[in-house]
Amino acid sequence: MKVVALAGGVGGAKLADGLARVLKPAELTIIVNTGDDFSHFGLRICPDLDTVCYTLAGMANPQTGWGRKDETWNVMEHLREIGAPTWFNLGDRDLATHLERTRRLAQGERLSEITRQFCDLWGIQCSVMPMSDDQMETWVETMEAGWIPFQEYFVLHRCELKVKGFEFRGREKARPAPGVMDAIQKADSIIVCPSNPWVSITPIVEVPGIMEEITRSDAIRIAVSPIIQGKTIKGPAAKMYAEMGIQPSATTVARHYSSWIHGFVMDVLDQQERDDVMRLGVEVLLTDTIMTDVEKRVELAQAVLEFSEKLSREIVKS
Amino acid sequence: MKVVALAGGVGGAKLADGLARVLKPAELTIIVNTGDDFSHFGLRICPDLDTVCYTLAGMANPQTGWGRKDETWNVMEHLREIGAPTWFNLGDRDLATHLERTRRLAQGERLSEITRQFCDLWGIQCSVMPMSDDQMETWVETMEAGWIPFQEYFVLHRCELKVKGFEFRGREKARPAPGVMDAIQKADSIIVCPSNPWVSITPIVEVPGIMEEITRSDAIRIAVSPIIQGKTIKGPAAKMYAEMGIQPSATTVARHYSSWIHGFVMDVLDQQERDDVMRLGVEVLLTDTIMTDVEKRVELAQAVLEFSEKLSREIVKS
Repeated sequence: MKVVALAGGVGGAKLADGLARVLKPAELTIIVNTGDDFSHFGLRICPDLDTVCYTLAGMANPQTGWGRKDETWNVMEHLREIGAPTWFNLGDRDLATHLERTRRLAQGERLSEITRQFCDLWGIQCSVMPMSDDQMETWVETMEAGWIPFQEYFVLHRCELKVKGFEFRGREKARPAPGVMDAIQKADSIIVCPSNPWVSITPIVEVPGIMEEITRSDAIRIAVSPIIQGKTIKGPAAKMYAEMGIQPSATTVARHYSSWIHGFVMDVLDQQERDDVMRLGVEVLLTDTIMTDVEKRVELAQAVLEFSEKLSREIVKS
Repeated sequence: MKVVALAGGVGGAKLADGLARVLKPAELTIIVNTGDDFSHFGLRICPDLDTVCYTLAGMANPQTGWGRKDETWNVMEHLREIGAPTWFNLGDRDLATHLERTRRLAQGERLSEITRQFCDLWGIQCSVMPMSDDQMETWVETMEAGWIPFQEYFVLHRCELKVKGFEFRGREKARPAPGVMDAIQKADSIIVCPSNPWVSITPIVEVPGIMEEITRSDAIRIAVSPIIQGKTIKGPAAKMYAEMGIQPSATTVARHYSSWIHGFVMDVLDQQERDDVMRLGVEVLLTDTIMTDVEKRVELAQAVLEFSEKLSREIVKS
């Protein structure tokens, strides 16, 4: 079985980790959003790639979901002392990642190669790849401050500004990273992790060629709702829907993806929305989607994979 | 009295510190070599500027002469863990300087402005300025490895390669930093600190316009020998002379500068060379030039300033 997971940050990383614990390494490819990537202090920072890799390697901070466990903050403290901006957290361990990635990029290495080498180093056996080696930057249009880069919206302004829309700058020139199209083509199952539909999943499928390859593939396509009871566990997805005049709910997410998914996984807490989602022409799996520990990640991964196999059998039959 | 000091790294920083302890802040301008500056891990690193500033601020590591006291090495340790190059030491405190400087440069601020702001922050009251805001990079021609950037010669190869020559890349387009020409013009005394003549002082005077301004000025021009008993306290100046077929000695240094200095300060240990230097048409001050502690820095600074005043009176008389 070949599985492709599309993932953003913390929520996506958790399900990706569950999948990596259930599948054989060769069976899993994780394609990660790099629309959030940005340059800060001259360093190239890839928040979602790092969150996914740190999580898969067991190196993530379990309290925050992002950053490293056993992190120290010496440089950050010294930056504060000299009046440098400290709105983006840079731990000492995390900084080593950013420094080495920046050094290699400056030498002409591709982000996808560097990511693969970091994975080797950190004992990550499945394939993790950026959606693209090219820069395609998510910008957020806000009521209060106009267009701003995603990290400024997300971290500097703590998602407090009202969202009007999104733009992926550099999209026209972006190409899928090596391996991305091949993985999609060979996939039996494509799983959209419970990541932010607007700023984690959309950038991935907006890389020219990727959506076409997804819809052309024979893979069963399943999305997992990041919204439970109208709220997210983490991140601004629900707030974004509301600000754009859309009632945030699991159904809303299902509608977001309904043109290209076969199945939708939503939390048992939202079972009253089951029929609404089914009416979108999408099969539904109701299950516990809140991944409070590693066992829950594994259980959700298993449930999603079983749902995919069930849909696969039904589609073959029909 | 207006004094300009030309300085490179550790030795230059020590005399600059002595001068700063003797003169009033408005009396002293320190022009620092930036030929050693380089980009590493995406960060702009200015070793001599940092050494001078850390020394003046009392923040330098007294054991090494470079870097910060009370330094920690967390990021360096994590860089080592991921197989990144660790030949250039990057302490956690020092990294904050590099990060913030890089961030400000990327925003279009000039190195001279950033340096001034760091000085304000660190309580440095005299003027410290880079020789230029433009990049003018010292490259070293070596027997074994051909042309290499200075930091690779100096740190990566620990000065072990044999030197054939030097080149200052970007020299044609480099302009003196704001304030440099004015300080030289107004100087009563220009003091060449005991820094490496080849790679610390020559880059400064090779910035187009600086040497012309120095020789046009009425200032008394004095150089302090970095070579004592044929050796340096620190750094490869003596080794460089020897490799280029020149016997390293105080006289050799005096000859290096003889076309544009009035006075030369050499160590009492080299008193037998006094007449050789005088024969170059240069006045000589024999004194203790080894700056083992802060008091010695002050004593040497006082001796150099008195020597300058003496020469000034003599030149006026003649």
